[in-house]
Amino acid sequence: MVTTKTVKGRKLNTRRYLNAARYVVSVDCIIFGFDGEHVKLLLIRRSFEPEKGKWSLVGGFVQPGEGVEKAASRVLKSLTGLEGVYMEQLQTFGDPTRDPVERTISIAFYALIDIHQYEQQLTEAGHPEWVPLNKIPSLIFDHERMVESAKSKLQAQATFQPVLFELLPEQFTLPLVQNLYERVFEKAFDKRNFSRKLLSSGLLLKTGRKERSKSKKGAFYYMLDKRKYRSFFRSLINGMAAKES
Amino acid sequence: MVTTKTVKGRKLNTRRYLNAARYVVSVDCIIFGFDGEHVKLLLIRRSFEPEKGKWSLVGGFVQPGEGVEKAASRVLKSLTGLEGVYMEQLQTFGDPTRDPVERTISIAFYALIDIHQYEQQLTEAGHPEWVPLNKIPSLIFDHERMVESAKSKLQAQATFQPVLFELLPEQFTLPLVQNLYERVFEKAFDKRNFSRKLLSSGLLLKTGRKERSKSKKGAFYYMLDKRKYRSFFRSLINGMAAKES
Repeated sequence: MVTTKTVKGRKLNTRRYLNAARYVVSVDCIIFGFDGEHVKLLLIRRSFEPEKGKWSLVGGFVQPGEGVEKAASRVLKSLTGLEGVYMEQLQTFGDPTRDPVERTISIAFYALIDIHQYEQQLTEAGHPEWVPLNKIPSLIFDHERMVESAKSKLQAQATFQPVLFELLPEQFTLPLVQNLYERVFEKAFDKRNFSRKLLSSGLLLKTGRKERSKSKKGAFYYMLDKRKYRSFFRSLINGMAAKES
Repeated sequence: MVTTKTVKGRKLNTRRYLNAARYVVSVDCIIFGFDGEHVKLLLIRRSFEPEKGKWSLVGGFVQPGEGVEKAASRVLKSLTGLEGVYMEQLQTFGDPTRDPVERTISIAFYALIDIHQYEQQLTEAGHPEWVPLNKIPSLIFDHERMVESAKSKLQAQATFQPVLFELLPEQFTLPLVQNLYERVFEKAFDKRNFSRKLLSSGLLLKTGRKERSKSKKGAFYYMLDKRKYRSFFRSLINGMAAKES
């Protein structure tokens, strides 16, 4: 039994590695999208056993020599066509029995994207479908838990950071912002309080233009003050640490 | 070559699993501690090759049948004696070359604890040592990157949540709070601004007692208003979502 290996020119006793167990490792991508009205989740039909044909997150096995972030991008592209999506690691799901065939440790990634921006890229490879958050079907394995965990993370981020504004058009009305927040948080907000809190952030610039198709009174278009937005971010990060008042 | 397996009574084609690569998976624990004055990091000397004897995070391989959270607790206990530490997942580090012996995917966990509270538990098993944050030696593999990532996460948490108060004694002075924040953020804060921001949170109750050993004028002891602290937490989480003003 070989228990040594030459590492950087030195012959080392690597018995500890020899005795270690090895596992299949997968990535699962939780891609949320906003189409201007609904927040949706990107799902595929699983193409192999077990659970073949069932609704699944976009996932696959990590290949040798491939970093885990790269695996997530490759899997996402090969099954949906989506490319250039910035995904963050959510959490690794390592319950020994989560996959009935054999232990598979899955690294979950998530992202929130503008559905229209990626519309052209979407292919038929893995039969991807955008499903509204309130109509998610049963998913395989622990994928529903993964989605719940990603939703919580997204809600926490949306609370502390103006991250959702990345999804809005350059000019937007307050009702549009409220709709997006209501979709992400899955609850209704009081209109007056929501607008007041939003405007009190000081991040929005009122334009002179009004959107008039949805009410007689109309709703002003706003823009994000990008300079303030960036410094708002910085000051949030610095938080109590900020020397300036 | 066996390409089928009986899963839940059904014989399935599991060739895709057979072809998947398998990897060693490890856990690494980044344990920060506060001793009332300094923030420190818990390190051990690695007990096997490669890098035997070098400074390392508290880490080990995930065993068959053992969840990854449980692996982290087991490894922490066996190498340091520490038990009952609530660790959160930080991130999974999956660079294919991070371990020179063979590809090892590592799930990093972190925690911030009160050093005194766990003093009795600390054993000599893995020769654990508390090292001040500003005196961390060279660490093996990508462990320095792990520590940097954990520090950033901790700083972000301390910005948005009163998480650091968990580490303070029941009654504390404002200079003590400031010292803790300065250690975690690794910079100096302006005393007047820091106190003002802290008090404006409305979370602190002033006691009538003063700490007099450190200055002639003395510093009032404060306590956390636990009821407000909990609702502050909730309202942070609800954030813009809060219906009540």
